[in-house]
This record gives sequence, structure tokens and C-alpha cells, in this order.
Amino acid sequence: MKIAVLTSGGDSPGMNAAVRAVVRECIYNGIDPYGVKFGYQGLIDNNLYKMNVYSVADIIQRGGTMIKTSRCQEMYEEAGVKKAAETLLANKIENLVVIGGDGSYKGALSLSKYGINVMAIPGTIDNDVACTDYTIGFDTAVNTAVEAISKIRDTSLSHNRVSVVEVMGRNCGNLAISAGLAGGAEAIVVPEREYSVEAICEKMLKGKDRGKLHSIIVYAEGAGDINEFAKRVEELTSLTVNVTDLGYIQRGGSPTAFDRILAARMGSMAVNLLIKGEKNKAICLRGGEYVAMDLEEALSMEGVFDEENYNVAMRLSI
Amino acid sequence: MKIAVLTSGGDSPGMNAAVRAVVRECIYNGIDPYGVKFGYQGLIDNNLYKMNVYSVADIIQRGGTMIKTSRCQEMYEEAGVKKAAETLLANKIENLVVIGGDGSYKGALSLSKYGINVMAIPGTIDNDVACTDYTIGFDTAVNTAVEAISKIRDTSLSHNRVSVVEVMGRNCGNLAISAGLAGGAEAIVVPEREYSVEAICEKMLKGKDRGKLHSIIVYAEGAGDINEFAKRVEELTSLTVNVTDLGYIQRGGSPTAFDRILAARMGSMAVNLLIKGEKNKAICLRGGEYVAMDLEEALSMEGVFDEENYNVAMRLSI
Amino acid sequence: MKIAVLTSGGDSPGMNAAVRAVVRECIYNGIDPYGVKFGYQGLIDNNLYKMNVYSVADIIQRGGTMIKTSRCQEMYEEAGVKKAAETLLANKIENLVVIGGDGSYKGALSLSKYGINVMAIPGTIDNDVACTDYTIGFDTAVNTAVEAISKIRDTSLSHNRVSVVEVMGRNCGNLAISAGLAGGAEAIVVPEREYSVEAICEKMLKGKDRGKLHSIIVYAEGAGDINEFAKRVEELTSLTVNVTDLGYIQRGGSPTAFDRILAARMGSMAVNLLIKGEKNKAICLRGGEYVAMDLEEALSMEGVFDEENYNVAMRLSI
Amino acid sequence: MKIAVLTSGGDSPGMNAAVRAVVRECIYNGIDPYGVKFGYQGLIDNNLYKMNVYSVADIIQRGGTMIKTSRCQEMYEEAGVKKAAETLLANKIENLVVIGGDGSYKGALSLSKYGINVMAIPGTIDNDVACTDYTIGFDTAVNTAVEAISKIRDTSLSHNRVSVVEVMGRNCGNLAISAGLAGGAEAIVVPEREYSVEAICEKMLKGKDRGKLHSIIVYAEGAGDINEFAKRVEELTSLTVNVTDLGYIQRGGSPTAFDRILAARMGSMAVNLLIKGEKNKAICLRGGEYVAMDLEEALSMEGVFDEENYNVAMRLSI
Repeated sequence: MKIAVLTSGGDSPGMNAAVRAVVRECIYNGIDPYGVKFGYQGLIDNNLYKMNVYSVADIIQRGGTMIKTSRCQEMYEEAGVKKAAETLLANKIENLVVIGGDGSYKGALSLSKYGINVMAIPGTIDNDVACTDYTIGFDTAVNTAVEAISKIRDTSLSHNRVSVVEVMGRNCGNLAISAGLAGGAEAIVVPEREYSVEAICEKMLKGKDRGKLHSIIVYAEGAGDINEFAKRVEELTSLTVNVTDLGYIQRGGSPTAFDRILAARMGSMAVNLLIKGEKNKAICLRGGEYVAMDLEEALSMEGVFDEENYNVAMRLSI
Repeated sequence: MKIAVLTSGGDSPGMNAAVRAVVRECIYNGIDPYGVKFGYQGLIDNNLYKMNVYSVADIIQRGGTMIKTSRCQEMYEEAGVKKAAETLLANKIENLVVIGGDGSYKGALSLSKYGINVMAIPGTIDNDVACTDYTIGFDTAVNTAVEAISKIRDTSLSHNRVSVVEVMGRNCGNLAISAGLAGGAEAIVVPEREYSVEAICEKMLKGKDRGKLHSIIVYAEGAGDINEFAKRVEELTSLTVNVTDLGYIQRGGSPTAFDRILAARMGSMAVNLLIKGEKNKAICLRGGEYVAMDLEEALSMEGVFDEENYNVAMRLSI
Repeated sequence: MKIAVLTSGGDSPGMNAAVRAVVRECIYNGIDPYGVKFGYQGLIDNNLYKMNVYSVADIIQRGGTMIKTSRCQEMYEEAGVKKAAETLLANKIENLVVIGGDGSYKGALSLSKYGINVMAIPGTIDNDVACTDYTIGFDTAVNTAVEAISKIRDTSLSHNRVSVVEVMGRNCGNLAISAGLAGGAEAIVVPEREYSVEAICEKMLKGKDRGKLHSIIVYAEGAGDINEFAKRVEELTSLTVNVTDLGYIQRGGSPTAFDRILAARMGSMAVNLLIKGEKNKAICLRGGEYVAMDLEEALSMEGVFDEENYNVAMRLSI
Repeated sequence: MKIAVLTSGGDSPGMNAAVRAVVRECIYNGIDPYGVKFGYQGLIDNNLYKMNVYSVADIIQRGGTMIKTSRCQEMYEEAGVKKAAETLLANKIENLVVIGGDGSYKGALSLSKYGINVMAIPGTIDNDVACTDYTIGFDTAVNTAVEAISKIRDTSLSHNRVSVVEVMGRNCGNLAISAGLAGGAEAIVVPEREYSVEAICEKMLKGKDRGKLHSIIVYAEGAGDINEFAKRVEELTSLTVNVTDLGYIQRGGSPTAFDRILAARMGSMAVNLLIKGEKNKAICLRGGEYVAMDLEEALSMEGVFDEENYNVAMRLSI
């Protein structure tokens, strides 16, 4: 039995820990693990290699993905998918573990039509894979954002300025909400909820009246033009407003214990399910339990907005 | 309406964030929050004060507990409990939020017999409160231990030594298991499971045969005498063995985002339940949901061993 | 005897540790310390207060400045300087410790003409105060930048991308050079040295030939338009190029041990010199020794480019 | 021309960065670099290999030493030294860079008698190499200790306890002094200075009188039995006293920017001096300048106690 593993889409901290878990669980069970380089592109290019226990030595703590990743356009076309499947079959590999976001899940589903047994593991900092409560990398990215916010608060407080901090998350506000709630932000702006810049400023002006002149506003990248927003805040409050885009630091860094454990559990589960003959599943953490959902069903699910965290953040930011 | 809050027993990172959430949720709802100093001892000594929004400014990120904590012997006796209840009633405070471990929960239950409406929030790094999947402080302590293990691994690897690392947790192996799994430890020793030092050493000798001469063993404080264990490993493997006790660094440090969010949600929920007239509940995170259990029932629950994490750690440590 | 202390200009990590040292050295010597809020603006507005040992409790580890800072336009005019001096004299304070960059030093020198005995301590992350080898905050900012670069490298390496990272430093390349040398950057662009984008790209193309497809380029803010530079690199190398501006995270954060010790030594020295009747000095670390230079002379010095670090960085980045 | 490099004695963070600098500076200059495994033991065992630019990829940020280290008893005997020299000469390697503490310097000096051109670079967390102001690893160890102290302070403060924290340093108090000064310790005990436990406790009792019930005492490992000391403090103050030994975490961890730059500069200088035909030198940072001293002279120097830092720490700890 052979199992291949690839990482796909934007990298996230903990992908390495997941690859390590897949490889070590394979070896523990006498299965040959294969690493595919650069995600689906590596399948199309026949860029894969047999791994052993040394291949994954000393990677559990490292950010990024040592088997590399890419966004592969060809996988959106039938010809690409066919070529990818043929590479696997030509190498007599019938099982594939895909670590990535929902774009990567679609590629996995396509491959399953060619007889590949796939397992999908959620790896993205955006936490926007609907079937699972947590994706690998999200907890690390939230902590990175919170640490950055903490540093920005130091200077914001010293100068009595308003700092608007842009965090990643594509169309999903989860990262912003968690970072804002944990960072004690005075306001959080997300794409899923309408907001009133006037209401936000009114609260800040109230704070100003009682002597509080600095604030942190966490702003999700999907929420619109941050500079326009900042300019409007400046106009309405007459406070000095700074903008910081946290950028790519949110993608890297050594994964937190939470992400490493998530990675270990999911990688281990994927291999064990393949051994049992299961296929085409999405590995999820749902309600504190690790479960395997039908991949097609998983892909059809819609994301649920993190209502309660958002509301608590709003109430505590008085 | 008035609500008092105290922290009790060993301090844990995130207690401050929980106090902040209780106080701010009170203020948001027009309730007067009171802080009790030094846990139950402060109730016995009438050491409490009215808090406001400034009382909890700039504490969300701080380890420890700014309202202080203690282990209070008097609360194990009826006279002490009575005195504590009288202090609250004399101050016309009928509601109390207790943040601590299960010892602190017992004190809360005792107070409820005197008509105090109590809410218990789990705050301990040991994750040994049976009713909840996570306690506030655990995630931070695991990350602290993992970072320390990572540093120890550097020197262990440079010298080809075995390092045995003692972590806290009292009679509970959860901290050791999570730290060991996330830290990629070669073995984990916990009080809940029998272990064979011979089997551990056999695995290390196999590693030695293929050239691996350094290992990390995570050892829970409840698992027996670590020095005897280390000596035995040295005898059986002829490898140099070092012992490091992580000690009190595990209790402190800025809380992780996970612990801050746990603290925010639980503190907020405790206050909202008291507003609704509920009482004598334990706030829990169970299966990804925040729920309130009857306090007496919560206290009667038995801890469940972290079987799956333990097993996965064992398999991946080949 | 009374000594006032203020922080001025851009905040930097370790300013709090310096304020603490000034205050505690005063108290140790039976002198009354005064804190001026918001830098020179606080002198103009008579916004100052008597400090005691509690005023500086628990601030040694905090970024920013708890006595606040500002950039004060009025101090560039005689009327402003006069008003500032009058505030001090009206409060019977003849001694002032100023913590800031060279702009702040000029304000101090102006005040000295009105009979104020001033001591200037270098506090800025830019390390651009010519008279001293190190400014308070620089070491912390370098470490913050190196950590951020390390995170960006994770994702750069996973995707085989070039990352151009903008760091602060105004017209001075010191922060870029130190961060680039310590971060193992493949190239460093600074305002003090001409560079050839073609030469940088040639080196990257050589790396590409032998299989290295990711690179980090550290780019000082004073070196010109980073986006134009990045575009040019993309054109010349056909590699994907990302830009990240580290922004305000470089200003905050808990100061490193180096910056705290620098702050302790300089704050202590400033007070002791004032006690001895010295005045109008710039406190410097020069060649490993703490020395006091005449303030006017210090201001007339020209910055020396960090030639050796720059050259070593160039050679090691093969 | 060939240059070998080895790391010897206790490992320290930044050794890898120094090895990288040696290897890359060699390659830049067309010299063949060789790595010796396990310090001098590798010379005795002929355990060395030719390195290239990939050998040192991705190690600049890693603690420990990837070419391993050991304490080698045979090097204290003439036979061992001879064997080590013969290994080098048999491999036609006449130049050796040794990274370690003063014990390692003695080995280098012995080898020089056999015609090996040696360069010694100070690598130890203890900062006890007399000829240099800083050793590689010291700055990282100080920061690690300060972070640990900060965590311990959280719990110390929450419980109103005294924490006595043991730090490394062998017979040298430098690490304790720097960590204590930067960590804001209430007292520092070092082997070089007599201390009075009564005087320390008197100060704490004064603090107790004005309401301060927690303290941190940094205790150097060379200063005697820490448990006896802690017991005496408990007796004299009636405060609860905890002891934490920071242990091996002080040796590991990613090196700070300071240590990486020190390593880059010293590694680069060692190679350039060998190219120029110089030999048997100790690379030092003295008074802010990188200089090369005669190795024998360097070894004859006596350490200077960090008087000023010690005194400032004492004064600021009121």
C-alpha cells in the first residue's frame, strides 16, 4: 500500500506537522509514504518522491511546508486532473492525502472521479473551511496577529493614536474576530456584517471624553478599502489614525501547540481511514470530535458566521 | 444588582482576561462589579472593592491574576464558609463568580448553601476539571512547555543526550500528553497509564542503532520520582540523561489567544446567566459549545483520560 | 533637588525602562522625580506630576512610554522653548532628562539656554543618533524585524517567492543592515549606498540556476519606492515577488535585555551626573563605555555608516 | 586552502550562525570548508566532512550546533592532541576555527604547537571568556532568563511569594547580573561578591511594610546551595519562598539578532585572518571593536567583574 501527501494553496503553519503525521503513521503501519512537491503541480509534473522517517525529522515546529505548495490553474481543467491522476496511478499510488483549503478540496474531489482514494485535511490560516470548526494554521495566525496588535498598541498608547490593523482571512472574518476579541480591540470590522463607521466613531468619542485617546480597530481584508475607512475615522474623530497591514507574517511562524495537535490527529486519522478502505472524506474537528465527512457533502456546506465571538467582542469593548 | 468575582487556588494565565470579561460584561449591563482580593481569603477578611472599567484596563494580556489568589484553608471548614458568605451578604452582594480549579468549585458550592448565587469558571493550567474540555490557562501552559522543550531539544541534539523534562499537572497527565504530542517527544510518562521503562529504552536503543542519539521524554509530575526514572534510563541505554523541571514558568506568561477567548466567553456567560436568575452552575466548554452545568453534578464527574492524544503521540514517536 | 523626565518623538521599546531608572535613581538619592506627559508638549501645557517608586512599578518590561510622547512643533520656535523653560522654573525644577532622538536633543539644547540643566538619553529604534553606538529600542526593533522576516521566510520558501520586506529607519540604514545580516537576507537595500537592482537580480538568478527560488530582500524605508523596486525585480527575474511593510510593529513590544540594560545604565548615569552638578550632556555608549558628551558637540556629529556589518552581510549572502 | 571548523564544550545559541559564517566566508573566498563533528572528539576520531553552501542552509536561526559538540577528555592529554593534529594534517587541513569557551581555547592552543593555524571564537552562554566583552550565546541566554523571570513574576505576584530563580554561569555572575538588572530583580546573588542574606531580607521586609509582598531573587549557580538560601529567606521574612532552576532552557533557543551578528562578524573575521596568514588568535569584541588577540595572551587574562551593572542593579532595586 502506498499513500501520497501534498500541500496545496496558501501555506499555513502546521502543514509540516500534518505531513509528518501522515508519513509517520504510514511508517508505523508499514505503508510507503510519498511526498508530492508543489501541490497538484507536482502531480501534473510527476514531481514526487518516496519518504521515510528522516524525511520529516525536525519539521514539526516549522512554519510553511517543506514539500512546498502552489496554486495550480491546470487542476481547474479536466485535462489537468486527468494528468494528475495518471501520475499517481503510473506510480501505483491509489491513495492521496491533500492538505489545504476548500479550493484544494475541489481538486481532491476531481481526482476521486479517477479512482484515487482521497482524504482532505483543512490547512489554511483563514478558518474558512465550512465543515470543520478549526483549520490547521488558524490558531497560530490568530496568536501572531494578537502579538502584533499588542506591539502596535504600545505605540498607539504612547502617542494617543488610533491604529487600524488589517488582518488576512479573504472573505471570512474569523481571523479578525478572534484576533480582535483576544487582542482587546475597541472595534472589529468584518465582511459578513454591515458596520457603521459613525457608530464606531461615536464609541471612540465617548472614550475620548473620559480621557481614552488610543484605540485598536481590527479590520478584515475582505471588508473593503482600509485607507478610506481610516480617513473617515480621522475625519469623524479628529484623532490621528495609523494603518498597519500585518501582511505575510500571518502566514508563517512556528505552529502553536493547538495547530500541531490538530495536525497530528488529522494526519493520523486520514491514514488510518485509508487503511480501513475508506475514501473521499474530509477530516474535520466538529464539536470537539474528530470526524470524517463525505467530501462532496463537506464541500457543499456553507460557512457559519462566528456570531457569539463577534457579539461578546462587541460587548466587552465598551 | 451586584456581582463579585474572585480567583482562587493556583494562578493560571487568562485569569485576568476572565476577570476583565466579568467586570466589563457587568458594566455593559449596568451591574456593579466587585473584586475580591486573594480568593476566598478576601471574603473571610472582607477584602473587596468596587471595580470599574479602568480597574481592568490593560490586563487582558497579562499572566497571573491582578486580584490575587490564595489557597484558603478556612474554606474547608463551616465557620470559614459562613464568614465568607456573611461578608458578601453584609455588602449586599448575592452573586459570586469564582475562577479556579475543582478545589475552588467546592468552596463555591459551600457558599451556595448560604444563599449566594455562584458561577464557577475553570481556571487552572492542569486541565483537570472534569466537566469542561478546556480550562483557562491550559493552552498557554502547553505552549510554554512546548517552547521550553524546543529549547532543551537544541542542546540535547547538540550533545546527543536524552533529556527528561518534568511538566506540571498534579495527578493529571493532560499537560504532559499535549506538550509531548506537540513537542514531538520520543516518550511521554503520565500518572494515568502504567509504563515500562524497559520498553521506552528499547525504542531509544533502536533509534540509537539507526544513529539517533538524542531524545526528549516528557514526564508528568504525578508520575513518580523523575530522578529515579532518569537514572534507570541511563543504566539501560548507556546514554547521558539530563533532567529539567520546568517549574513555575508554566504558570505565568501572557495568555494565548485561545485562553483569552475562553476567558472572555466564560466570563461573559457567567454574568449573563446570573442576570437571568440562574445560579450554582459550572461554566464549561463541552464539544465546542459553551454550556452551564449544575455545579454539584459538575463536581461529581470523573476526569476522562486523553486516550486518543496519548495513543497518537505513541504511534508518531517511532 | 528636583529632576524632571520626559520622552519625546517616536516612542521606542525601553523608554519605560529608562524612565524607571531615572525615577528610581532619584529616589535612591533622595531627589524628587517629576514626570512630564507627552514630551515637550507637557512642558508647554504644564502637564507634569511628582512621581514615586510606585509610579514606575511594573513598567520595565513594557513597550512604549507610559508618560506618553509627542512631536511638538512649538519647540521649534523660541516662544515655545521659553514657555517650556518657564514651566520648569515655575515648578522649581532646574534639571531635565530628555529621552528621544536627535530632534529631541535640539529641544533640550534650546532649553539649556534658559538655565535648565539637561541630560539627553538616546531613545529611538532608528539608531541614528550619531554620538552613541546604540540607541534604546534599536536592539528590540532589530529582533522584531528578524522574527518577522523569519515568519515571512516560511511562506516565501513554501511558495518559492521573493519577499521584499520594508523596515523602518528614516534616512538611516542601520536597522535594515542589522535585520538583514541577522535574518540571513539575500540582499539589503539602504539609503546610504547606491545599489544595482540588476546586480541583486543577477545573484538571485544564479541562485535560481542551482535550485534556490526564494529570497528575502530587506529594504530600508529611506531607500526609495519599494513597489517600483519589487516590480523591477519581478521583471528581471520572472520570479513572483511579494512586498511586506513591517509597519508599526517595529516600534512596540517588550524591550530586549540589551535595551533594558542600556536604559538602566543611561538613566542612572544621567541622574548621577546632574547630582554632581554636570549639565547639558548627551549620554552615550561609545566603544563599550558609557560616556557623557557635551550636548552641542554631540549634535554636531555626523552618523557613521555601518560599513563592516554591511560588507559582511553582502559576503555571507552568497 | 582548507579550513576546518568545530564547536566544543557546552553548546550555545549562535554557534550555528558562527559555523555558517565561517563556511560562507570560505566559499566566498574559494576556500574549502570542513566541518568536524562532536568537537575535538571528531578530530581524534577522524569524523569530519567537506561542507558546501547547502551544508549551512537554514541554520542561522537555530539554537545548538548542527555539527555537534562534546567535552573531550583526551584533549587534556598530549596523546589526544597529537592524534587530533594528525587527523587535520592527514586531511591536508592546516587551519582550524574553534568555537567554544576557554576550555576549548586551551585545546586550540595545544593544537597550534603541532603547526595548526588556529582561530578561537568565544561561544558560551556564560560570558566568562576574559578577552572578549561578549561571547556568542550570552545575549540569547540573558533574554531567555528574563522571559522566564517575567513568567515567574506573574505567579509570584498573584500569590505574594518570593521566587528565587537559579541561572547558569558556572563561576561567573554575568548572566545573573544581566538577567537580574534587565528583569528588575529585587536582589541578585553572584559568586564574585559576598552577600548578606540578612541585608537582602531587610530590604524585603521594608518592601513588605509598604505592601510589597512579592520579590524575585536571581541566584547564580556558582553562588552556593540555593535551597539553603531559600530556607534562610523564608525564616527571616516569614514569606513563602519558591525555588526555580531554569536549567537547560538557557542553553537553547533561536539566537537573538545580537548573537547572530556577533557570530557573523567573528566567523567572517576568523576566515579572513587565516587567509592573510595570521594564526593562533582569539577573536574578541572589545570596546565595540572586533579585534584579534594572541591566543596565549588571551588565555592568560583574568575576567573582570561586571561592577557597574551590578551596582546599578543594586541601586535600582529599592
